[in-house]
Amino acid sequence: MHKKQKIPKATITRLSIYCRQLELLEFDGYRMVSSEKLAWLCQVNAAQVRKDLGYFGEFGVRGVGYDVRDLQIEIKKILAVNRGWNMGLVGIGNLGTALLKHQNFPDRGFRFVAAFDSDPEKIGKNLSSGFIVRDIKELKKTTQELNIGIGVIATPASGAQEVTNNLVDANICAILNFSPLQISAPDNCVVEHIDFTIKLDVLTYKLKYEIGL
Amino acid sequence: MHKKQKIPKATITRLSIYCRQLELLEFDGYRMVSSEKLAWLCQVNAAQVRKDLGYFGEFGVRGVGYDVRDLQIEIKKILAVNRGWNMGLVGIGNLGTALLKHQNFPDRGFRFVAAFDSDPEKIGKNLSSGFIVRDIKELKKTTQELNIGIGVIATPASGAQEVTNNLVDANICAILNFSPLQISAPDNCVVEHIDFTIKLDVLTYKLKYEIGL
Repeated sequence: MHKKQKIPKATITRLSIYCRQLELLEFDGYRMVSSEKLAWLCQVNAAQVRKDLGYFGEFGVRGVGYDVRDLQIEIKKILAVNRGWNMGLVGIGNLGTALLKHQNFPDRGFRFVAAFDSDPEKIGKNLSSGFIVRDIKELKKTTQELNIGIGVIATPASGAQEVTNNLVDANICAILNFSPLQISAPDNCVVEHIDFTIKLDVLTYKLKYEIGL
Repeated sequence: MHKKQKIPKATITRLSIYCRQLELLEFDGYRMVSSEKLAWLCQVNAAQVRKDLGYFGEFGVRGVGYDVRDLQIEIKKILAVNRGWNMGLVGIGNLGTALLKHQNFPDRGFRFVAAFDSDPEKIGKNLSSGFIVRDIKELKKTTQELNIGIGVIATPASGAQEVTNNLVDANICAILNFSPLQISAPDNCVVEHIDFTIKLDVLTYKLKYEIGL
């Protein structure tokens, strides 16, 4: 079983994808699924599915497959998403405003509970998502009051490091960073970056070398 | 030199990050940079920088480092971002609307040139980003007229596969998919997914296992 073994990040990403497909299978009334079928649904191969799950234990029955519901529960435990998470968003621009309304977050147990900005023109504004923009200065107090576990940065690059420092100061240990800045955070804080244009660079690279365009 | 060798995707992602830091270094007036400094700026180690670049050739001078401007140009060639790309967006919801206004795309040579939806209520609408929403039925014609190279999907999961089929039918070979669906596309089409909640699953996993929360 998994203790302190280093698990590849790609495995964690795939576990998340497996979990989504298992939810869809359950919704469609399936009780069992083979590693082949799960693999096909997730566009990987079956050996990969077995290897990824193998890091964490024995979940399937040889020749029968996986229990759709049980495997979901196990993966959610592994990913620590078997409980709800409260998130605070910093940076109320176009992207931030859209993220607050993005239905995928609450659908998956990630709920925005507060929105912050440092711009006096924005602070106090009522957003159509129902949030009132709070002063970034209230971040620490609000984090305690509302039990915020994850900070989401949707500011331009220029403000992102200062916001990171604010989040760390408010004892937030997990940051999802949508700004293009490679923010630096202390070791006791985990960061994931979502940089749209890096994905586009990967895409154009693949176009050139895999497709030959 | 790179021909058909399989390069790790993580390397491509890091090349994109190196390129951004090189731009910032150039902006700050630097002409040369050591692999150690570049690595530090990108939060990786120097051996990784040298290994990643080593896949593609010899770019540095031992004991001197890399030419900030030349290395940028070389990486942009590798990533095939040394020219502009026209993009079409499908799905004019909150996220799609925000993406059309997102400054990072044009800043990096990726320019939206058209926006599509299938909703009769949205088709023909003037967006504040300056776009008029086109009927998805015009996708193929518009793609030719405007030389669209990349399709961006910002629909809910339910519509994403049909949109993918439309994009493929319009001879678009590169898709950036913001929907949570694992879309399937033919082999001559490259796809990158940006699923915000998968990143959050990775984040909560790291919180649990790396930070112990």
